[in-house]
Amino acid sequence: MVPDAQPFDLAPGFTATAVACGLKSGGALDLALIAAGHPCAAAGVFTTNRVKAAPVLYDQEVLGRGAGDIRAVIANAGCANACTGAPGMAATRRTAELVAASLGCAPGQVLVLSTGVIGRPLDMDKVARGVAALTSAASLRGAAAASRAILTTDTRPKTASADLALGGRPVAIRGFAKGAGMIHPHMATMLAVLTTDAALTPAALETALRSAVGRSFNRVSVDGDMSTNDTVLLLASGAAAAPPDALEAAAFTAALTGACVSLAKQIARDGEGATRLVEIAVSGAASEAEAHTVADSIARSPLVKTAVHGGDPNWGRVLAAAGCSGAPIDPARLTLAFGAGGEAVTLVQGGLPVGYDERAASALLKRDPVRIGLDLGRGEARATVWTCDFSAEYVAINAHYTT
Amino acid sequence: MVPDAQPFDLAPGFTATAVACGLKSGGALDLALIAAGHPCAAAGVFTTNRVKAAPVLYDQEVLGRGAGDIRAVIANAGCANACTGAPGMAATRRTAELVAASLGCAPGQVLVLSTGVIGRPLDMDKVARGVAALTSAASLRGAAAASRAILTTDTRPKTASADLALGGRPVAIRGFAKGAGMIHPHMATMLAVLTTDAALTPAALETALRSAVGRSFNRVSVDGDMSTNDTVLLLASGAAAAPPDALEAAAFTAALTGACVSLAKQIARDGEGATRLVEIAVSGAASEAEAHTVADSIARSPLVKTAVHGGDPNWGRVLAAAGCSGAPIDPARLTLAFGAGGEAVTLVQGGLPVGYDERAASALLKRDPVRIGLDLGRGEARATVWTCDFSAEYVAINAHYTT
Repeated sequence: MVPDAQPFDLAPGFTATAVACGLKSGGALDLALIAAGHPCAAAGVFTTNRVKAAPVLYDQEVLGRGAGDIRAVIANAGCANACTGAPGMAATRRTAELVAASLGCAPGQVLVLSTGVIGRPLDMDKVARGVAALTSAASLRGAAAASRAILTTDTRPKTASADLALGGRPVAIRGFAKGAGMIHPHMATMLAVLTTDAALTPAALETALRSAVGRSFNRVSVDGDMSTNDTVLLLASGAAAAPPDALEAAAFTAALTGACVSLAKQIARDGEGATRLVEIAVSGAASEAEAHTVADSIARSPLVKTAVHGGDPNWGRVLAAAGCSGAPIDPARLTLAFGAGGEAVTLVQGGLPVGYDERAASALLKRDPVRIGLDLGRGEARATVWTCDFSAEYVAINAHYTT
Repeated sequence: MVPDAQPFDLAPGFTATAVACGLKSGGALDLALIAAGHPCAAAGVFTTNRVKAAPVLYDQEVLGRGAGDIRAVIANAGCANACTGAPGMAATRRTAELVAASLGCAPGQVLVLSTGVIGRPLDMDKVARGVAALTSAASLRGAAAASRAILTTDTRPKTASADLALGGRPVAIRGFAKGAGMIHPHMATMLAVLTTDAALTPAALETALRSAVGRSFNRVSVDGDMSTNDTVLLLASGAAAAPPDALEAAAFTAALTGACVSLAKQIARDGEGATRLVEIAVSGAASEAEAHTVADSIARSPLVKTAVHGGDPNWGRVLAAAGCSGAPIDPARLTLAFGAGGEAVTLVQGGLPVGYDERAASALLKRDPVRIGLDLGRGEARATVWTCDFSAEYVAINAHYTT
């Protein structure tokens, strides 16, 4: 049973509502509508998978035509509408038309998100009834309900907020996300919608979003798989302030990055079967890209993730994963520690094991979050990647997903 | 309990023997010696991991000095002698010296293999007693014993043989391997020793071995991890025939490839926690490299491997894994089938699901081996990768490996 989300609002200028339309079983919420009071600027970052779901292709088309007058995002869980060909694309267009008719805007002002099983047709009877219900008294109002409606194998809703001042006026960033499996850099079976009342052009939004995604959602790995449906949307109502200058834009990007990192960590923490969040911090790299490459290789390693699960300080697996990352590391310069701050335990220095307390090292792997720090001794750059431990429950969840 | 290997001999000119020296617990065989009656030609292919175990660095040094007069291979399981620095390299050299003294040859004529836990020192007292015992009456004679001594988490020995004629005379290829975890293209925690009585120069052996490894051991994935110790050695006694001509050399490479493919499939079949072998055959690619890239991406996907484990025909995961391989595939040209020959079930044509019998598709995922065939519709090239299903037992094995 998914717990209720904490009370949570979107940024001023946006409302959300959700219903159960039958795409999920058991009467669970599965259709969410995020609506803007006025046409707003939008930006999106999408999966780089060659196999893209219909809503991804559709949203890219909508945003490519001009992203200055978006009115709504409609999101369903329970069906990914991927590998569904022309009928799938028609279903996505029809969904947007239904929402547009209900809100009194053009279909090209509606963005669509889907997540769930690949290769099954979207049941348009259910979606049509759901869209009608979204505007009725039967709908569950509020972003907390919407954040629950988009979940699939997630065990909890994921929300984040950040606040800053632009032009001397307060600005809010509020968003939510889903994702628990098929999670890997360059996104995941992951949807996120972020809203703000800042006044930014679509181009400025896109710049900020790409930067934020690069250091948040693209630094999460649950299982190394990349989905057909990954989408992060950012909508700006402009209700709060005048367009920011360059300095303020940087502050906005930093605040947005903070909100995205929070969502990304919540996704990793809620990885299918996961019992704890694992933070892989690589430092001393020649470049940030190199640090990311090494951290990613460690985060992808099932042997590292199972060792963390068992609290087994099998540090050789961490070094082996770093060594096969493709980065030109020098084993003799590696320093490896578990934990952070005063409680950190150094296991390896100069590539060799040092005398350490095995019980203390094991205990640090049983904390939540687990912190694994690897210094490459090659430079000053660093990157952090978030993943989770790997349990037998992951297999149980995924061995019978469609059947 | 590891079952006994079937009676098995190395190629003429080679003998093998094994003892239990205490590196493994419970009195299991853990030290194997493969000896050549006369100095022989040798070639090796090694891990590309930047973190290389001492025996890998040592063997590369020995073969680099000239690989025409090798007399023996000493192999231990239970300790990888990786991340052990200068003392680890000294232990490897000392192991070779002990074997050389016992056989009456130079240390530079002895190759060394190690597999087991990373980062622990090799117990040289045990190795020294073991080497002495290998030449005593207490040792277990025969390649079958040696093939058991090198195992770690393997559940069964892995042996292969191939026969051909060179210059009108019969030639044998005989080998064995170990490997069950940390198995991924560009090798694995995988050791293999192949012997032949063919008369080939070290350079010709290396050419044949690189070609064979490229289409066998480098096409296996259990968990995407790459080890610090991977080594495949090929020794040629030259007892059988005169050096082959170019046509015969090609026949030798083909026979060697067959033996290596057999060992590679045995390794995938015996993947940690695996219940069946999975063969990913990608066809219709623009190049063999492209086919390999796509097949590898599918074989690495935990979502595909857990679906196979559960007999869940969740074909969307196969397409999603192909789509994020990096290869420029066109979703609209994909054809996907489970099974082979007359029993094959086509699930996807032109990128879209076709009407298929879900029960039949599920049944094909419960066969051993499982065959997944994906045609890219882009060209004529093909490649096959072998992996295994992914069970909860994998997690159980790896959560407490060192503790």
